[in-house]
Amino acid sequence: MLSSIKRLLIGRPLKSTALGEQKLNILKALAILSSDALSSVAYGTEQILIVLATIGAVAFWYSIPIAVGVLFLLAALILSYRQIIFSYPHGGGAYVVSKENLGVNPGLIAGGSLLVDYILTVAVSVSAGTDAITSAFPALHPHTVFIACILVVLITLLNLRGLTESATILAYPVYLFVLAILVLVGVGIFKIATGHTSASIHHAPIGAPVSGITLFLLLRAFASGCSALTGVEAISNAIPNFKDPAPNNASKTLILMGSLLALLFSGITFLAYYYGIAPKASETVVSQIARETFGRNYLYFFVQGTTALILVLAANTGYSAFPQLAFNLAKDKYMPRMFTIRGDRLGYSNGIVSLGVASILLIITFHGKTEHLIPLYAVGVFIPFTLSQTGMIIKWLREKPAGWIAKLSANFIGALITLTVLLIFFITKFSQVWFVFVFLPLIVIFFHRINTHYEAVGEQLRVDPEHPAIPIEGNVIIVPVAGITRVVENSINYAKSLTDQIFAVYISFDREDEKRFEEKWQKWQPDVRLVTLQSHYRSVLVPLSKFIDTIEHKASENNYRVTVLIPQFITKKSWHNILHNQSSFLIRAYLIFKKRVIISTLPYHFKK
Amino acid sequence: MLSSIKRLLIGRPLKSTALGEQKLNILKALAILSSDALSSVAYGTEQILIVLATIGAVAFWYSIPIAVGVLFLLAALILSYRQIIFSYPHGGGAYVVSKENLGVNPGLIAGGSLLVDYILTVAVSVSAGTDAITSAFPALHPHTVFIACILVVLITLLNLRGLTESATILAYPVYLFVLAILVLVGVGIFKIATGHTSASIHHAPIGAPVSGITLFLLLRAFASGCSALTGVEAISNAIPNFKDPAPNNASKTLILMGSLLALLFSGITFLAYYYGIAPKASETVVSQIARETFGRNYLYFFVQGTTALILVLAANTGYSAFPQLAFNLAKDKYMPRMFTIRGDRLGYSNGIVSLGVASILLIITFHGKTEHLIPLYAVGVFIPFTLSQTGMIIKWLREKPAGWIAKLSANFIGALITLTVLLIFFITKFSQVWFVFVFLPLIVIFFHRINTHYEAVGEQLRVDPEHPAIPIEGNVIIVPVAGITRVVENSINYAKSLTDQIFAVYISFDREDEKRFEEKWQKWQPDVRLVTLQSHYRSVLVPLSKFIDTIEHKASENNYRVTVLIPQFITKKSWHNILHNQSSFLIRAYLIFKKRVIISTLPYHFKK
Repeated sequence: MLSSIKRLLIGRPLKSTALGEQKLNILKALAILSSDALSSVAYGTEQILIVLATIGAVAFWYSIPIAVGVLFLLAALILSYRQIIFSYPHGGGAYVVSKENLGVNPGLIAGGSLLVDYILTVAVSVSAGTDAITSAFPALHPHTVFIACILVVLITLLNLRGLTESATILAYPVYLFVLAILVLVGVGIFKIATGHTSASIHHAPIGAPVSGITLFLLLRAFASGCSALTGVEAISNAIPNFKDPAPNNASKTLILMGSLLALLFSGITFLAYYYGIAPKASETVVSQIARETFGRNYLYFFVQGTTALILVLAANTGYSAFPQLAFNLAKDKYMPRMFTIRGDRLGYSNGIVSLGVASILLIITFHGKTEHLIPLYAVGVFIPFTLSQTGMIIKWLREKPAGWIAKLSANFIGALITLTVLLIFFITKFSQVWFVFVFLPLIVIFFHRINTHYEAVGEQLRVDPEHPAIPIEGNVIIVPVAGITRVVENSINYAKSLTDQIFAVYISFDREDEKRFEEKWQKWQPDVRLVTLQSHYRSVLVPLSKFIDTIEHKASENNYRVTVLIPQFITKKSWHNILHNQSSFLIRAYLIFKKRVIISTLPYHFKK
Repeated sequence: MLSSIKRLLIGRPLKSTALGEQKLNILKALAILSSDALSSVAYGTEQILIVLATIGAVAFWYSIPIAVGVLFLLAALILSYRQIIFSYPHGGGAYVVSKENLGVNPGLIAGGSLLVDYILTVAVSVSAGTDAITSAFPALHPHTVFIACILVVLITLLNLRGLTESATILAYPVYLFVLAILVLVGVGIFKIATGHTSASIHHAPIGAPVSGITLFLLLRAFASGCSALTGVEAISNAIPNFKDPAPNNASKTLILMGSLLALLFSGITFLAYYYGIAPKASETVVSQIARETFGRNYLYFFVQGTTALILVLAANTGYSAFPQLAFNLAKDKYMPRMFTIRGDRLGYSNGIVSLGVASILLIITFHGKTEHLIPLYAVGVFIPFTLSQTGMIIKWLREKPAGWIAKLSANFIGALITLTVLLIFFITKFSQVWFVFVFLPLIVIFFHRINTHYEAVGEQLRVDPEHPAIPIEGNVIIVPVAGITRVVENSINYAKSLTDQIFAVYISFDREDEKRFEEKWQKWQPDVRLVTLQSHYRSVLVPLSKFIDTIEHKASENNYRVTVLIPQFITKKSWHNILHNQSSFLIRAYLIFKKRVIISTLPYHFKK
């Protein structure tokens, strides 16, 4: 039943050899990996204006030079990530680059930072999308958290179905959003150029003197604008998902995404400036621009609808990048091994499910109000940005390939800017981002503890050809019996077929019962030794466990192994389970974890 | 750690021989078994007045004859239960009496009805007590459900500690409540007798004509008043908990409880009538009487405080009777066997815990508003009342002991009245009690299905001396291997010590890997057969399971047994578990339930 529900939700399993068919072409990759970056167009300009609004409308012209700065940073990032893609065609992005060039700990910091970041991406963007939905349908407002969780579950299922299928479904909203914003910007600029703008609009000319403006404030506005750049790194993490030649396709996708992002972001920023739009709590900047340009007609709702969609789907970028990153970390033994296993549909299902569960927990914890996690999330991106650029600098210095000075310059500028942005974040928004200093070290420590454990295990499991294990001399089998039944008969029979060292153990709660049982046993199985143990506290476990200790001690001296046979009733109907097996389950669990004995479970299938 | 918390909460385990010390004397038994019955004094009179108030204050004098009727019924019940106690000194009350004299189904109806009833008792009385607490401290009001659940947990823990300990703790509030009501009634009557009552009080004389009064209404009021009699049966269910001579002590306790209940109930009803008290939503009748008698001084608060306490503790009666009844049903194979097991402190812990869990679920389901469950709960008591009285009639008719006519008369009157009350309930409150016709048949069906299953199991487990099991010819051992490790070495070694029919099974995901592994194995364990299986869907389970089927089929033809060896890593720290064992756990669970093979679990203890 369960498995047919699973089939319905995520589809039939795929053969391992179908992995190639699951790879992405450029158009699908752009849809699936750029939704996060492109969605920032919906709020990037607004973030800048919110900071400038603390001075007044006269300061809004600064959004133009700040946007130029952001575009410059974007260009630097695209250039440097292009180099990373070709240098590390197997993906892994910041984690692999930092680890290989800067050492394990910088790599883990980058990796841990990104892992947390992808969880934040999902929680924040789904919450933002849910807000857009509940703004449109206020009746849904009390169910915000529930709707957000359902959306996460849907996106998780989509990703469990596999990459290409989700890419096919997601391509529409992403391209519709791009189309909507392109139309908006095109019509807006056309109207301005032809003088068809409303008379009421007003904006301060660029360069107008602004009293009270400070460098701190401008830096803060710049840092806020940089939140438009989150998600740019996703492509470099996901190269293995591309069709061959993967690095070329990834690089083309990256440049395409960068160009689109630059175009949309500068268009929106320009229109916002020209229309003199101020950020409002009740209406987003994009909505104001669309209303100013189109009026409240169907084009306006098209822009609003696709914006809401892209905000939700921005989450999807995390679903491509997180499992791949978790795989890389797990392969290096810094995360549990289960993250290396491909599921039925060839995705790393454990990574996908973990991401879904973690973001649902985050959404529930913050009751769907995840806005104040945004700065944390921007910092979480710029740490790996900086580390990977720095790693590339070291790589060029070490390898010095043809044209290395140009390459080094690109990464150097990238590193410098991202480090600057990071420092601006820490200086201007410390109260919102200090938490990163708590959780990042904890995550890195945790990675190391996992690694230490796996290394220790590897050491212990290694076969030593010089010292092969000593052959076992013989076996002792202990059969706990609760009465004279067919199950006991089966167990004794099985034990007899393996060894002649058998102890049937009977736990009695009073003397009379003990005597009676011994007599019955003597008649029934005279050739099998019966040990009766008194239990004063009605516990079966305590006397049995003591007895096993004694036997085990003696057995190990002679290099014998001790096996305990425990029957398990297999019932015809699953509810019958509550009528059986409680004590055998407890005994088995206890003995497996606490004793050095082998536990053999004998199934006894009921016929009705 | 867990076990030391358990020790702290419920105390060290007791020896089975300490069972005698855990038995109750009369005073403790009265405290523990009568809290339910006595607590009804707090609301019995009010229930009558609420019905009469629909006509008007002039009808309140009817409360006196109705109370006389209730007292008469009480006397009949006490008399008949006294006879039950002596006839069935091993307890079980209504269930045992009905089953033995009327047949299995009436017995199960009585038993099921009482089981549900005890759960309702706990939920209703704890909710009522919580209401009293939150009325006193309105700040706690939003946490009603939480407080009620905590109270249930506390009472459950108290009962897990054992009978005598909880009796010692509970004796104080019960006797303080009795004292408080006795003082209240005494002072009230003394003031009336000496003419020290306030001038404002007014009541219609007994016998005053009341227009609009109907028989239906009077019957309804009587039925409501009978809710004061719930809990009377508890003693007859719990005879095995009494010190020897158990029946005598139980009978004395019963008579003592009946007298106290009669005294308190008639006192409260008389004062309510004399003071002309009308039921109010904002204040209970007992509170009005106490305020009228004492004014709002410390005596008033003493009455209120002890009333709140006894309402909570009424729940405790259920904790004595439910586990005992569940034991009786489980002994007869109508409930899961686990209800027959005594816990560390000699109580039937599974019954105690189940009762606690079920009432918490009920409280949460009804958000702590369990008042409208009261009629259901009264019906749940009067069904077994009627059945057990009828059973006793049959018993006297069948056995005809000395003086059987007097005995029969007592039970006949009891049966007649309880049946009448039951019919009144069904006629006057059908909309609130119809649900009993749904759940009682379901419970009885469920009891029968459990019984059928246990009987079928008993049949299947019976050893047939004519046809002893055929000895096993030999063993095949299958060792799934994932690599060349010490764990595999251990498993192979163990397998070799048991048989020479060993298959090491390796699941490979591609051809190259398969070949490489076969070569390595050939060098390492040339004398152990290696079977490699290709998995196209990355599943280990499917190919392994198919292979096991083939082997098992062949083996069973030759009367061989198949054993699968699965290693289990035992980690040093429990969090390490998430780093291991997922797949071996899944494989084991699947094979145990789906295949006819023996699963041997080899522990591998990590040293770090």
